[in-house]
Amino acid sequence: MFSKKQILLGHGSGGRLSHELITQLFIRHFDNSELNKQGDSAILTFAEEKLAFTTDSFVVDPLFFSGGDIGKLAVAGTVNDLAVAGAEPRYLSASFIIEEGLPFNTLEKIVISMAEEAKAAGVKIVTGDTKVVDRGKCDKLFINTSGIGTIISGAEGIAEGIKIKAGDKIIINGHIGDHGMAVMSARNQLQIHADLQTDCASLNHMIKKIVETIPDIHFMRDATRGGLATVLAEITEKDNVGIELDESNIPVRDSVKGMCELLGFDPLYVANEGKVVMVVSAESAEAVIKTLQEFKLGKNAAVIGEIVADHPGRVWLHTQIGGTRIVDMLAGEQLPRIC
Amino acid sequence: MFSKKQILLGHGSGGRLSHELITQLFIRHFDNSELNKQGDSAILTFAEEKLAFTTDSFVVDPLFFSGGDIGKLAVAGTVNDLAVAGAEPRYLSASFIIEEGLPFNTLEKIVISMAEEAKAAGVKIVTGDTKVVDRGKCDKLFINTSGIGTIISGAEGIAEGIKIKAGDKIIINGHIGDHGMAVMSARNQLQIHADLQTDCASLNHMIKKIVETIPDIHFMRDATRGGLATVLAEITEKDNVGIELDESNIPVRDSVKGMCELLGFDPLYVANEGKVVMVVSAESAEAVIKTLQEFKLGKNAAVIGEIVADHPGRVWLHTQIGGTRIVDMLAGEQLPRIC
Repeated sequence: MFSKKQILLGHGSGGRLSHELITQLFIRHFDNSELNKQGDSAILTFAEEKLAFTTDSFVVDPLFFSGGDIGKLAVAGTVNDLAVAGAEPRYLSASFIIEEGLPFNTLEKIVISMAEEAKAAGVKIVTGDTKVVDRGKCDKLFINTSGIGTIISGAEGIAEGIKIKAGDKIIINGHIGDHGMAVMSARNQLQIHADLQTDCASLNHMIKKIVETIPDIHFMRDATRGGLATVLAEITEKDNVGIELDESNIPVRDSVKGMCELLGFDPLYVANEGKVVMVVSAESAEAVIKTLQEFKLGKNAAVIGEIVADHPGRVWLHTQIGGTRIVDMLAGEQLPRIC
Repeated sequence: MFSKKQILLGHGSGGRLSHELITQLFIRHFDNSELNKQGDSAILTFAEEKLAFTTDSFVVDPLFFSGGDIGKLAVAGTVNDLAVAGAEPRYLSASFIIEEGLPFNTLEKIVISMAEEAKAAGVKIVTGDTKVVDRGKCDKLFINTSGIGTIISGAEGIAEGIKIKAGDKIIINGHIGDHGMAVMSARNQLQIHADLQTDCASLNHMIKKIVETIPDIHFMRDATRGGLATVLAEITEKDNVGIELDESNIPVRDSVKGMCELLGFDPLYVANEGKVVMVVSAESAEAVIKTLQEFKLGKNAAVIGEIVADHPGRVWLHTQIGGTRIVDMLAGEQLPRIC
């Protein structure tokens, strides 16, 4: 079944290899209608209630970085996965795999950070688990959070997947690449730019306002592992449409640009932890931008491109210097253990 | 806050140190009514639906052992946590942390085992996540499963916690210690007893039958890490009652007894993965035993003791040789990475 015989770092990248693993292994064997939709959250229908359900494990290295830590990430990441499914995040689980010898202080700092982020997002951590493994059998601490949210009235379409169409606008709520470069900077103890910090944040309050007040939100996804490029490539594959991106409209901080150049990364592929990509009707785009800009987390929101009928399955980037290039899904692994 | 400065293996044992970590760290900071109940599952009330929600990470070493593997364990473990909360397990998440270099065949075998166990239990794996870490940064494979179940009509009392009372009978559905000794045997490549295999199994169908047909089920818990002893010690603390156990009625296989003697373990503390401890009214005890024995997983069910008003907070074991000893919660760690 698999051409390669071992798991590679790229299978955890969120890019091409991850997709192969998901479709060829997990979906093949676990096969069911909820999973097969491949949303960030599964949408579950009970007798009287429609819920979103999602899970994420966090293995970021190092545990602390400028503007955040693994705990904040573990809460915000799962909150955001629920929010982009059109759900109001309600309950989280937290499961810890700890390496023997981890200082209590470190764990407590992280737990406090989780508690604070949960409070900010308005979710409760209601169930948990702790495993401890011998020294050398894991790297300090891994955290899994799973989450349950209730689908927001009027967002049933987003939850179940609306077909996007040519002419729809693509919007992002701010600068890309902050999280990836903040972690790289902490990992390598680089101190190049003082303003370089993670964008890690719970986006649910902002997203809820958009969903509740503006019609024609066709698709949302948070651009984490694999970056903005991977989300856009997924959209073109899923709905068999093309995308045209305007590089000059994509917000990237100078500090992130500089560090990417220095380390040889493309900001389009660098992980974010507080960025949502929205596909909305052309008519609603202005209202979405205006509403996003009411929030601190959306004040640099921009229309960065649009859906086209041409070149289905392809993302074309119109570069600042007037050229055009194709943006594909991340092929291997660019930044292991970024989240 | 903590007398010890580092995380010890015992903090993951399910015993005394785990309890300290939960109450002094997690509950202190995450503080909310659902978590504070400390059930195996959190009970969540939505507008029209009452759900159980639970999570567990699995780090068992080795990945395969007689009668099971980490995948089967990851599904059955979470299914059972939901079942003992009086819920019908419905949906599971599956999150994988994989060490780079794990053979695909190994992962696929485990995924197939998960799919089979999910089918047997009647649950769907609807959402997931995969992270890959560099060689040496985790040990082969860790799996987290979280689960959602719907509270069975009539089991609302079990879900919310009924006060148990003196005279109630304590029932277990079969032999104790099988799982722990099967894993130890695989880990040490011992081949002492051919019949030594894990009891790992999804108990939900059997538990559902009990819950739906017999009144006065006051408490249920699966006896995993920390073994039967730890569950019983928890009951005495939670409800401030005493327990008297009759050693001669506790089912233990000769092979498990032999291996425990050889390795210096007490079967009361050895992990199970297919055993439920039930506390039921004296009037219902016979019907529970009869119903359990209709199932393959319950054919060795037995009344092993009763709740008493004397010595609250203490479990007394009447030994086969006529003595009496106190059974406390597991103090340190007996068998790391047993699940």
